[in-house]
Amino acid sequence: MLAEIITIGDEILIGQIIDTNSAYISKELNKIGVKVYQITSVQDDRAHILQAFEDAKKHADLIIVTGGLGPTKDDITKQTFCDFFEDTLVEDQNVVDNVKQLFKKYQLNKPLPANFLQAMVPSKATILTNLYGTAPGMWMEKDNTVFISLPGVPYEMQHLLQDEVLPRVIKRFKRPFIYHKTLLTYGLGESAIAERITDWENELPQNIKLAYLPSLGKVRLRLSSSNIDENVLKESIDSRMEVLSGMLSEIAIGFEDETSIVGRIAHILNQKNETLSLAESCSGGAIAEHITAEAGASSFFMGSIVPYKTELKTKILGVPASLIKKYSVVSIEVAESMAANCCKLFNTDFAIATTGIAGPTKGDGEDEVGTVCIAIASPTGIVSEKFGFGNDRYRVIEKTITKALEMLLKEISKN
Amino acid sequence: MLAEIITIGDEILIGQIIDTNSAYISKELNKIGVKVYQITSVQDDRAHILQAFEDAKKHADLIIVTGGLGPTKDDITKQTFCDFFEDTLVEDQNVVDNVKQLFKKYQLNKPLPANFLQAMVPSKATILTNLYGTAPGMWMEKDNTVFISLPGVPYEMQHLLQDEVLPRVIKRFKRPFIYHKTLLTYGLGESAIAERITDWENELPQNIKLAYLPSLGKVRLRLSSSNIDENVLKESIDSRMEVLSGMLSEIAIGFEDETSIVGRIAHILNQKNETLSLAESCSGGAIAEHITAEAGASSFFMGSIVPYKTELKTKILGVPASLIKKYSVVSIEVAESMAANCCKLFNTDFAIATTGIAGPTKGDGEDEVGTVCIAIASPTGIVSEKFGFGNDRYRVIEKTITKALEMLLKEISKN
Repeated sequence: MLAEIITIGDEILIGQIIDTNSAYISKELNKIGVKVYQITSVQDDRAHILQAFEDAKKHADLIIVTGGLGPTKDDITKQTFCDFFEDTLVEDQNVVDNVKQLFKKYQLNKPLPANFLQAMVPSKATILTNLYGTAPGMWMEKDNTVFISLPGVPYEMQHLLQDEVLPRVIKRFKRPFIYHKTLLTYGLGESAIAERITDWENELPQNIKLAYLPSLGKVRLRLSSSNIDENVLKESIDSRMEVLSGMLSEIAIGFEDETSIVGRIAHILNQKNETLSLAESCSGGAIAEHITAEAGASSFFMGSIVPYKTELKTKILGVPASLIKKYSVVSIEVAESMAANCCKLFNTDFAIATTGIAGPTKGDGEDEVGTVCIAIASPTGIVSEKFGFGNDRYRVIEKTITKALEMLLKEISKN
Repeated sequence: MLAEIITIGDEILIGQIIDTNSAYISKELNKIGVKVYQITSVQDDRAHILQAFEDAKKHADLIIVTGGLGPTKDDITKQTFCDFFEDTLVEDQNVVDNVKQLFKKYQLNKPLPANFLQAMVPSKATILTNLYGTAPGMWMEKDNTVFISLPGVPYEMQHLLQDEVLPRVIKRFKRPFIYHKTLLTYGLGESAIAERITDWENELPQNIKLAYLPSLGKVRLRLSSSNIDENVLKESIDSRMEVLSGMLSEIAIGFEDETSIVGRIAHILNQKNETLSLAESCSGGAIAEHITAEAGASSFFMGSIVPYKTELKTKILGVPASLIKKYSVVSIEVAESMAANCCKLFNTDFAIATTGIAGPTKGDGEDEVGTVCIAIASPTGIVSEKFGFGNDRYRVIEKTITKALEMLLKEISKN
């Protein structure tokens, strides 16, 4: 049982938007045991779409198509479906009613004639009602291959997939059980990990696949396999992951999907009823953004200050100007003072402080681009470290976030 | 002159990561006149990759492949290149030296044998030196089609593309000039816009394509075409866009892609020698993160405070507790007080303040999830507005960022 995803739209091929729909659909299909063989992004062009349909049909039992369903002239998906299925467009009364209802509920104006074009659908299609937008989903079959068309607007697509598509796919196809488990590690490179786990890796059975997913400062290790028997498969992968986690205990943060590093931090701080504040200079609000992106942050996160200009480190955060003069603004001493004063200002148990040169140009001090000092203040004292994170602005900020959260996790995990 | 992009990696097909590389590459190729015909994501599987190479070669003159270049066993791109080009791997001394240098500069440990596997490259490949990571880029040719392999780590890929790939593509291929211009509109639906501009749209010449790109609360209208003569093309599209912009003047915000909204804000503030600070409650540092992500922020951005807890709005930012009690923490009045006091605290000309309920649970006040108040303080006074941004945390934060920057741009653009 294989699936393919086809996304239609010139906006993807000129890089105007990032295709997030494919990742969402792939993840959801995987959960129900459907393997995605390929993702293809094609132009708003009839011949190109037809070619993609033919190619996909060679491998896949299920083809999910997104995009190109708007009411305006540049959208041609429906007409192309008609060509492919030798069908014609007919008006569907349920879609007409849905358009009327959506306008009544959410719009100030009345629907225009163009809005009712959404009700013109291929006569052979099973219509999937879209409660969040006017473009319906469609389910069609040819030579035992199922084609599904969904709108490209992400939240409309997501609701249709969950409410209409997945339940029908589960009924229609026999599927194996697919299982992935991912261990998140910080602080050691891909090659160094590979060397340490060579024996373990060589003993993996053929049908269990190991993948290394490195990104700045962290490496994710994923085991994947599929099997008819869910219990056998889970047991087989879980037990191997336990061994791996033990072998890498000092760098393993936990299993992904269960919780993120922010999730772990939130869990520990909430359990201990302790609080956190931030003084972010070179990371410029990015750590706060990470922490508050997850729901429930307000139970432990008191707030953050970004004293981007050097003099504000003194004025608002109370870092002595003499200290900055003596050690430079990017120094262990200034980072520690920022962290300690941040705890006081926000009245928190823990604080992270960052100061550094993200680049591309040098800052107020003498330090090289990429120099970053991070300090963590805790009820038992302050730890700090100086790093060289290289000469790419994005990378410096990302590595600062990763390292700061890793250092914080270590401190709050102490008893 | 057509290009195709092939991204390799099971992590894309199981939805574990979103493929952002393709959008970046597409956008950069477009700028130099290279049209991307198709984007294909394939598995870490030799036969599948070879099939994708064969298929892409049918249409494209240039094929850019990303991913699958790590030093560990799951990465098979290089071996597959050898199969496709009937080639073998040989050691490249420049890559060996680069690995040594990178480790010397950025790593505490010495390189492992596995790291030097990166120096094993197809003998026929032109090597593109990667100054930001150990995996080199590769340029190979077959039957007049150019294949380029780049690492999947985004910033490594981006540097290689900019420094090594694009200059060579410009030299190697004759390219037309491709031009897009996008008008950003807020407040009217796709169909309503289409109805208003029917006559204008019908008069567009065959070779200029109009696309509607709707997303939450806004519709982008894009004109695209390509031509050998840059001046003729620009003149033709620009003049049509001026007419369109005039027809939609009350909903048009401006042209996209000329520069980001943060870039425009930076430009104006630097020109006027004015400064900005932020007081972000519900946006939790996300606006600061957006502003500091672009280089050069320190010339106008003084800093930010995230008073996430209600009492900190009083303690650090000086918002009267009585005001919060009288109007609720999510109110126009509190947002305005936050903005005014933020200007004072950071000694800036402008300040943005946000307060709201991002959800999923209600905050300290009585307001519904999605309620957000934004205020902009300027030398001439304060403007503010209350919004309902719906019940999805991610959307609430994203909409807050967008709206706050839009409001700020309007204020700083006044004389």
